Amino acid sequence: MSKIKIGILGYGNLGRGVELAVRNTSDMEVFGVFSRREPASVKTCGASVYSIDEILNFKGKFDVLVLCGGSATDLPTQTPEFAKNFCVVDSFDTHAKIPEHFANVDKAAKSGGNVGIIAIGWDPGLFSLNRLVGESVLESGESYTFWGKGVSQGHSDAIRRIKGVVDARQYTVPIESALASVRAGENPNLSTREKHLRECFVVAEDGADKAKIENEIKTMPNYFADYDTTVHFIDLETLKREHGGIPHGGFVLRSGSTGENGETKHLIEFSLKLDSNPEFTASVLVAYARAAHRLHKDGKSGAFSIFDIAPALISPKTPSELRKEIL
Amino acid sequence: MSKIKIGILGYGNLGRGVELAVRNTSDMEVFGVFSRREPASVKTCGASVYSIDEILNFKGKFDVLVLCGGSATDLPTQTPEFAKNFCVVDSFDTHAKIPEHFANVDKAAKSGGNVGIIAIGWDPGLFSLNRLVGESVLESGESYTFWGKGVSQGHSDAIRRIKGVVDARQYTVPIESALASVRAGENPNLSTREKHLRECFVVAEDGADKAKIENEIKTMPNYFADYDTTVHFIDLETLKREHGGIPHGGFVLRSGSTGENGETKHLIEFSLKLDSNPEFTASVLVAYARAAHRLHKDGKSGAFSIFDIAPALISPKTPSELRKEIL
Repeated sequence: MSKIKIGILGYGNLGRGVELAVRNTSDMEVFGVFSRREPASVKTCGASVYSIDEILNFKGKFDVLVLCGGSATDLPTQTPEFAKNFCVVDSFDTHAKIPEHFANVDKAAKSGGNVGIIAIGWDPGLFSLNRLVGESVLESGESYTFWGKGVSQGHSDAIRRIKGVVDARQYTVPIESALASVRAGENPNLSTREKHLRECFVVAEDGADKAKIENEIKTMPNYFADYDTTVHFIDLETLKREHGGIPHGGFVLRSGSTGENGETKHLIEFSLKLDSNPEFTASVLVAYARAAHRLHKDGKSGAFSIFDIAPALISPKTPSELRKEIL
Repeated sequence: MSKIKIGILGYGNLGRGVELAVRNTSDMEVFGVFSRREPASVKTCGASVYSIDEILNFKGKFDVLVLCGGSATDLPTQTPEFAKNFCVVDSFDTHAKIPEHFANVDKAAKSGGNVGIIAIGWDPGLFSLNRLVGESVLESGESYTFWGKGVSQGHSDAIRRIKGVVDARQYTVPIESALASVRAGENPNLSTREKHLRECFVVAEDGADKAKIENEIKTMPNYFADYDTTVHFIDLETLKREHGGIPHGGFVLRSGSTGENGETKHLIEFSLKLDSNPEFTASVLVAYARAAHRLHKDGKSGAFSIFDIAPALISPKTPSELRKEIL
């Protein structure tokens, strides 16, 4: 059986993760990376690199294009644009703009007879799937999502923009007592501050006013003001040595009840502990690239989310193998 | 919008759970219970009761029949039989016979133009779904399923069959150190004995030889011989007071790696903590009854497992609401 050929658009941490994730599968192979950079300057783990300007020359040469750009500026235009000519999968994660993005990709993908799967990864993605299962099975109940412990790129960037800061890493940390209350079936109402802590490791310029930096971080609206935040000043070497990874993870819980009067309690919990956020996100993208290819072969077109895709489509095994081996 | 009408076949713990679960939904209603017993003798929580012999008179009067019999003798014949005339959902859980059962239901359901969803609940069911997601996303890795702490009906029954035993309750208990090893990414090879303990609460007849009963339990092949088993003798009142519930639960874990040489570790964990095994199983059955109805309205027929069903189909919300609210 011929392998599913994957194109990769963009080669940052996520694109590299996709290259490695495809190599880890039994039924897929990397066709090549498409980049806005000069191809010769892009160092992959082995994949060929082409200029994004040439991509239409490769129409029909590979099966699915995995989009590895960012949600702020890349994906809102790239996913609809490339869905006209290729089956695509993206990790669009701006929750509030998902309906609009879905509509745009749906229109473009249908015009080209392609499949476009959006918002794949772990949140949105596997976490969304678990929120859906939880609230569908236990309609009487409460859902909770906690993130972390993990690095927030956005919050780390926000600290780096402060005058006097050389580099920074911010961890989002779920508050154990809040998790414990949910697990105990107490269905608490949790404020933003009660769910997560923010822990910051900051490298300051020589002679910088650390008290001022710390205050600027802790009072920064949207990013830190609504949280209990701790700031640790460390040197650059320590930052690189101890905070060089991009771990993440989190928890989705559904605490619900059944019975004649809700007297029976149940707890559903899904959690992830990831040493590398981009490598795991890439692994989910690649599994859904498999689904995109199969949906397309089955004559489908348009936009899909994780909710619209039968789970069997993401497995390298056949439905009959799945029933026999893991059902 | 008219509500989805649910028929319930069989009224034990599971049938009662389905009646209550349907009442908990916003878009479904109980049409009635069909029983092999004299209808007047069946005490429901409000649902009408009909004789199973009359069921064909109600063809077309309700949308989905939820089968609440046992996997040993009821479902292997009932699910194919009723799939000829009704859309059905069952909780068939004899893992080794699933392929055969699927084939039988597929043939019968297709002959009647109906949808038959099999092996729904939590294992098989939600646990299967998580095994699939885990191994599809992290192809390099190991999967682990632990059950409990919870009551095993089969093991409790096995103890009750021993001479001198009045009543008994058996708990399956996952071994914490094994779970900890999996969570630590050690990918251990675990024997049966290393994964679960069996804890038994036994009421003996007056004057019975307790040492003999304990020995018979601990050496019983298949059920107990391969496990570390503890036996507690208690009186009947204590059994009823402290062990009257049917709690269960468990864990599905996928410990896998990504990266150039598997150097990056990830852990996916799904767990359930259920105060009532039958009420929770019933809640899953009812969510998939919703899917059966929608698949049928969409012109589909034949057998389906949890792997074949797009998650959106189990939610009372529309795909557009789901994208907006929880994706």
